[in-house]
Amino acid sequence: MMYDVIEIRRDFPILSREVNGKPLVYLDNGASAQKPQVVIDAVTRGYAEDYANVHRGLHYLSNLSTEKYEGTRGIIARFLGAKDEDEIVFTSGTTEGINLVAYGWAMPRLQAGDEIVLSVMEHHANIVPWHFLRERLGVVLKWVDVDATGALDPQKVIDAIGPKTKLVAITQVSNVLGTVVDVKTISHAARERGVPVLVDGSQGAVHMPVDVEDIGCDFYAITGHKLYGPSGSGAIFIRKERMAEMIPFMGGGDMIREVRKDCVSYAEPPMKFEAGTPGIVQQIGLGVALDYLMDLGMHNIAAHEANLASYAKARLSGLNWLQVQGHAPGKAAIFSFTLDGAAHPHDISTILDKKGVAVRAGHHCAGPLMEHLGVSATCRASFGLYNTEDEVDALVDALELAHDLFA
Amino acid sequence: MMYDVIEIRRDFPILSREVNGKPLVYLDNGASAQKPQVVIDAVTRGYAEDYANVHRGLHYLSNLSTEKYEGTRGIIARFLGAKDEDEIVFTSGTTEGINLVAYGWAMPRLQAGDEIVLSVMEHHANIVPWHFLRERLGVVLKWVDVDATGALDPQKVIDAIGPKTKLVAITQVSNVLGTVVDVKTISHAARERGVPVLVDGSQGAVHMPVDVEDIGCDFYAITGHKLYGPSGSGAIFIRKERMAEMIPFMGGGDMIREVRKDCVSYAEPPMKFEAGTPGIVQQIGLGVALDYLMDLGMHNIAAHEANLASYAKARLSGLNWLQVQGHAPGKAAIFSFTLDGAAHPHDISTILDKKGVAVRAGHHCAGPLMEHLGVSATCRASFGLYNTEDEVDALVDALELAHDLFA
Repeated sequence: MMYDVIEIRRDFPILSREVNGKPLVYLDNGASAQKPQVVIDAVTRGYAEDYANVHRGLHYLSNLSTEKYEGTRGIIARFLGAKDEDEIVFTSGTTEGINLVAYGWAMPRLQAGDEIVLSVMEHHANIVPWHFLRERLGVVLKWVDVDATGALDPQKVIDAIGPKTKLVAITQVSNVLGTVVDVKTISHAARERGVPVLVDGSQGAVHMPVDVEDIGCDFYAITGHKLYGPSGSGAIFIRKERMAEMIPFMGGGDMIREVRKDCVSYAEPPMKFEAGTPGIVQQIGLGVALDYLMDLGMHNIAAHEANLASYAKARLSGLNWLQVQGHAPGKAAIFSFTLDGAAHPHDISTILDKKGVAVRAGHHCAGPLMEHLGVSATCRASFGLYNTEDEVDALVDALELAHDLFA
Repeated sequence: MMYDVIEIRRDFPILSREVNGKPLVYLDNGASAQKPQVVIDAVTRGYAEDYANVHRGLHYLSNLSTEKYEGTRGIIARFLGAKDEDEIVFTSGTTEGINLVAYGWAMPRLQAGDEIVLSVMEHHANIVPWHFLRERLGVVLKWVDVDATGALDPQKVIDAIGPKTKLVAITQVSNVLGTVVDVKTISHAARERGVPVLVDGSQGAVHMPVDVEDIGCDFYAITGHKLYGPSGSGAIFIRKERMAEMIPFMGGGDMIREVRKDCVSYAEPPMKFEAGTPGIVQQIGLGVALDYLMDLGMHNIAAHEANLASYAKARLSGLNWLQVQGHAPGKAAIFSFTLDGAAHPHDISTILDKKGVAVRAGHHCAGPLMEHLGVSATCRASFGLYNTEDEVDALVDALELAHDLFA
């Protein structure tokens, strides 16, 4: 099947709108992706026709809602290559997923002096929960740098694993540089050393096929809103052995077996880690989004984005007043850049916006990387499955305008 | 303005559907409420026309999304009578709100032997987080019983406050009995004794006007999906003095000031307690839902439901083979009941479902109360702003059928 991006764009209603009188060129996919009509329809129908709370309802709408909601668990398992859907815990996104691991697995196990290995490219979602362990328990964070191209040598991560290392927490794709990390090599080496690996899949699962069994990681967190699904949806894959080691994170309904005045017992995983009424309709929408992605084919999406990345790289390298951050081989279609001269990335992005081009400007929730790069902020154009070479051209045209204005 | 329930029902598309060939009689509002078209439209539009991630975006769609999202904070503050919208923290619902208080306020402050006072009517969301403190810190839970009618004497709660009491955690309305708790009297007395009060407003805010300043509580948690808003939406009011005492709960983007390799500093509240990309579209939808409720008028809704409760009470009391649990004066329109004989509530609810009547059956996430009542499960019919006396009649007709079948 041909990957017909023009046809695919018609699935996304927002892409036909204008911004500031110009066609929207949406290049802020790293922050959040737009939603296909099938997802929007699933959400609308979820509220307008089929809505009820899930689990234990016993009436028709509750059973229907439960079936659709729990169906998403299997879809996520298939999307991530998990052997068993009971290894999938619903979350509101990667942030909650990683905090679940920090509170439920790491806090009761780690002690002062224990080490967590992470890369300098991590997003704050995969840093701050570990800073909590540093602040509260005296855990030591061991940082692995990237090279001058932004590539991360997996051997450097493996070498950082020592006898005190209790966890490797690492992103699969940098949200700033687009660097793809060889999480498989890292995971297999860590496993040989008895050290669990958490992969932040916020960007990785969006841009390439993922198989957690092949990767061999223990935790793999995804965020639904970046996967063309609803806001507030997400999940984390947790290997059964790790689940068995975890205490509950949030307490409430649905995660218990029995609650009495003087004692409480907990449900079996994954329910043990899912307290209270979940994000019913958004998780149903996430299932539809992942089915949509699997129908397109993650390999096809990856191939389309690789072409886009080559084209964007070529076009941007023609602008000799613009510095792209990150040139790792095989990088994902994420381009952070600064312009020569005094123009602040915020001002650049404002000019681009006048031309309908949506990019993000700032530290991209990656403080340590910004420090490593020696910049306080960048602009970032991040591409998705529906972006086109014409949109790369629109970005370049708008950048030339910005350059002229600030030169 | 007349409260025209027939007109109001037209705002809720799902209410015109059939279930099992019968018009839907939705009496499971205590578990989750249905959504008016304005909320569904806000969600649809949020994805199809205006979607982007919030905060720091600087492009048009991000600014628009941020404005609408942050606008909800002010709407929630107005809905709850908070003086300052910075006292509102967005959550995915009451469960996350109470866990935020447990992890962010209570865990770093309470010690072995400290006491938390709670009523026997609490929902698991307002029990299990405190069991965590019992399990992990040796905190003591002090339970206050209800009387034979299901009423809770506020003086008994006040009398339970001792020198070791560090928190009173109490529901405003029982999700099983409908009992309304005088949280104002409790809060003022607790405050005189220097003890903060957390009110679980999951049911309370749905059925009556709430004014947290008048109540005088320190924490007031709400759940959006019970307030006719989207699933996964919610908030908690936290008094500024308490916020100042809290450590962060979840770590990630947006809740920090600066992240470096060796240190982290946090944003000011309320952002400090809001990690990662939030539930953007569902919180926008919650704002629309609360505006809808305020337009109808919470006093008008309360009056309508009081009439319904009187009518339901009269009709149900005519069934001498049915036992309603809870007869507290002024109770909300929530009726839990069992039928004489061997019929399990699950079977009853299945019969009702055949007649299109949706009720819940089970322990209603209220283990200690079930134990207190000496039952393992009940059926529960819980009414909302759109229910009618005709629907009470439909419930009674279906109950009579169930009674005939099982008699």
